[in-house]
Amino acid sequence: MFELITSNLSSRARRGRLATTHGVIDTPAFIPVGTQGSVKAVSPRELRELKAQIILGNTYHLFVRPGINVIKHFGGLHRFMNWDGPILTDSGGYQVFSLAKLRRITEEGVHFQNHVDGTPAFISPEIAMEIQAALGSDIVMVLDECAPYPCEHEYAARSAEMTTRWAKRSKAANAQCSTLNAQRSTEKTELSAIGYPPSAIKRQLLFGIVQGATFDDLRKQSAQKIVEIGFDGYAIGGVSVGEPEEEMMGAVEASEPFLPNDKPRYAMGLGTPPQMLEMIARGIDMFDCVLPTRLARNGTAFTSTGTLNLKNAQFALDKGPIEQDCACPACREFTRGYIRHLIKAEEILGLRLITLHNLQFYLDLMKQARAEIEAGTFDEFRKNLISNYKTREVDLA
Amino acid sequence: MFELITSNLSSRARRGRLATTHGVIDTPAFIPVGTQGSVKAVSPRELRELKAQIILGNTYHLFVRPGINVIKHFGGLHRFMNWDGPILTDSGGYQVFSLAKLRRITEEGVHFQNHVDGTPAFISPEIAMEIQAALGSDIVMVLDECAPYPCEHEYAARSAEMTTRWAKRSKAANAQCSTLNAQRSTEKTELSAIGYPPSAIKRQLLFGIVQGATFDDLRKQSAQKIVEIGFDGYAIGGVSVGEPEEEMMGAVEASEPFLPNDKPRYAMGLGTPPQMLEMIARGIDMFDCVLPTRLARNGTAFTSTGTLNLKNAQFALDKGPIEQDCACPACREFTRGYIRHLIKAEEILGLRLITLHNLQFYLDLMKQARAEIEAGTFDEFRKNLISNYKTREVDLA
Repeated sequence: MFELITSNLSSRARRGRLATTHGVIDTPAFIPVGTQGSVKAVSPRELRELKAQIILGNTYHLFVRPGINVIKHFGGLHRFMNWDGPILTDSGGYQVFSLAKLRRITEEGVHFQNHVDGTPAFISPEIAMEIQAALGSDIVMVLDECAPYPCEHEYAARSAEMTTRWAKRSKAANAQCSTLNAQRSTEKTELSAIGYPPSAIKRQLLFGIVQGATFDDLRKQSAQKIVEIGFDGYAIGGVSVGEPEEEMMGAVEASEPFLPNDKPRYAMGLGTPPQMLEMIARGIDMFDCVLPTRLARNGTAFTSTGTLNLKNAQFALDKGPIEQDCACPACREFTRGYIRHLIKAEEILGLRLITLHNLQFYLDLMKQARAEIEAGTFDEFRKNLISNYKTREVDLA
Repeated sequence: MFELITSNLSSRARRGRLATTHGVIDTPAFIPVGTQGSVKAVSPRELRELKAQIILGNTYHLFVRPGINVIKHFGGLHRFMNWDGPILTDSGGYQVFSLAKLRRITEEGVHFQNHVDGTPAFISPEIAMEIQAALGSDIVMVLDECAPYPCEHEYAARSAEMTTRWAKRSKAANAQCSTLNAQRSTEKTELSAIGYPPSAIKRQLLFGIVQGATFDDLRKQSAQKIVEIGFDGYAIGGVSVGEPEEEMMGAVEASEPFLPNDKPRYAMGLGTPPQMLEMIARGIDMFDCVLPTRLARNGTAFTSTGTLNLKNAQFALDKGPIEQDCACPACREFTRGYIRHLIKAEEILGLRLITLHNLQFYLDLMKQARAEIEAGTFDEFRKNLISNYKTREVDLA
């Protein structure tokens, strides 16, 4: 299921391949985020043209709207959104903690009111598995508690212990959903489908999540206990929740040595281009992040030398593409000057074009990282990119 | 330049072909509106895939933002927006009257403050021609005064007379811009262009505009005087400005008999599908209208039996396409239920898909009208469509 092709002597960077029901994912991999059943502003066909190999759906958002029964009625999330490549779904836990109102955590699960219309709801490890079975995701995440930042050691310890108990319950429930999983179809829909090849993998992959906040001892304990339960892959959760970058790196460094080599590792909710390369150098294989789509809507484009805010007047007469030699539809056909005009005039085409460019940039960065790992030159590539990469705080605001 | 292929014995409907610098337009034709240098939410490539033969740019909006000098710097509107099919631009007059602040009309022209930042500006027939020469439009409109509805006979008469004097000045100024026009290039840009064939027409076509509000005598006089000046085509202006539908039809019926048969006729700012068919039956060849793009953003889709508001709960579980047998990207790949979810969740893909569908519907309606005129069955087609077409007022709100 997970094949480790090559790893890098000068760093912990790994080049791998993960097989899922709807197709193979080359790692290191970037996963575009399709929160509500759509990667914002982009069509499934465009995602395929960008060569995205997997997308992410947010269970909490889909649970709130349109509701799981609606997606079930359409035959699962792949058919509903007409994307027949792999889908990873989170458990919904993170959004319950960050978005929902009036939440109350018990050993059993989390009671909350959704942020759209306040309807009371309850999610438990078992329910999270049922929902993700109904969605038909290729990769399923256990329900965890994502501790806030900052957080006391005592709270983080108790929380990580509950996350371990929830992980056990998630695994047992996922096994019980196997009937549902097997029913999940990979037949083509009546609508014209995109055409990913069939796969030998006939079940959902289940990933465990390491917690433990910013405490090395808790990260180690959590990693060991989660690995003991045994999953198809391991995520590092509770990162990118507001902590300084060195704490983020520390959390990964404290967890990674205790994860098995033969399973994929996934850093949730990350990151900037330099952060992703640093994480790859620390043995991480998968990333998902809203930055390329979210910043595009604000006029910010990613390039290999840093971010550009295309709203700036300096681009008004610029006849060049966002980035030289970029193969994305925006750079092939449109100038910075035109895209600036579209963003200033609040034309939807402007954010569409920057979104396509940014996704291409993230996907190309991972593609190049894979090539550099294979060539044994990843470390040099990482250092070069990071030293040339300027983050302008104003662009990220 | 304009070839009248066939007309219909049982109605005044005409089937024609209009040659312009950037390509040929089959009439009756629908012109998608690209107000600010972008047909809202749609890319030039998608417009070509929809087989749009011409688009409209709004001179007033482009004058305000990004400014004519910016578009000149990029080599004209075609290159700026990377659309190499025909472009029609209006004179800017209509938006000065409907959008700008503090306007003052004199014989010389119109002083106004733009609606974006209040900058004072002045537009005259001569300036309108210079601007449209700089934009490089294939079809240029004279500057006119669009009288409001309702409007007194005396005001309408004086206004139409001034519009006639402005039409003469527009024609003279357009002739003087010929050097500029000749400089306008149809070479391919460095960016990958869409690939319309070259044309033998090497100048901008200039259309006159008939005014006269809702008064038959004024419409007749205006048509006669504008035709006397002599233009490449004739528009009927001052319609779709809030008047009842019978007044709109009356204005066309009072103008059309005085327009030459061998020139295209264009009803500005129209209309609903039934209105366009009624106008075709009254001898009109060209239409532009924001309804397909504007209503899409509100979740309203056009079908041959009327409009559908896809926000309605009745579509939540609907596995069918917006319209059976529609060849648009939305109907080929997505269900009503999914598109409804996207619109309810305010996902940009939702309005993109409905926009593509609505433009396809308008373009297909014209395509079918052309085929029916050629087959001599247009009148039956028009009556059938109109009797089956239900407009739900709530969808248009």
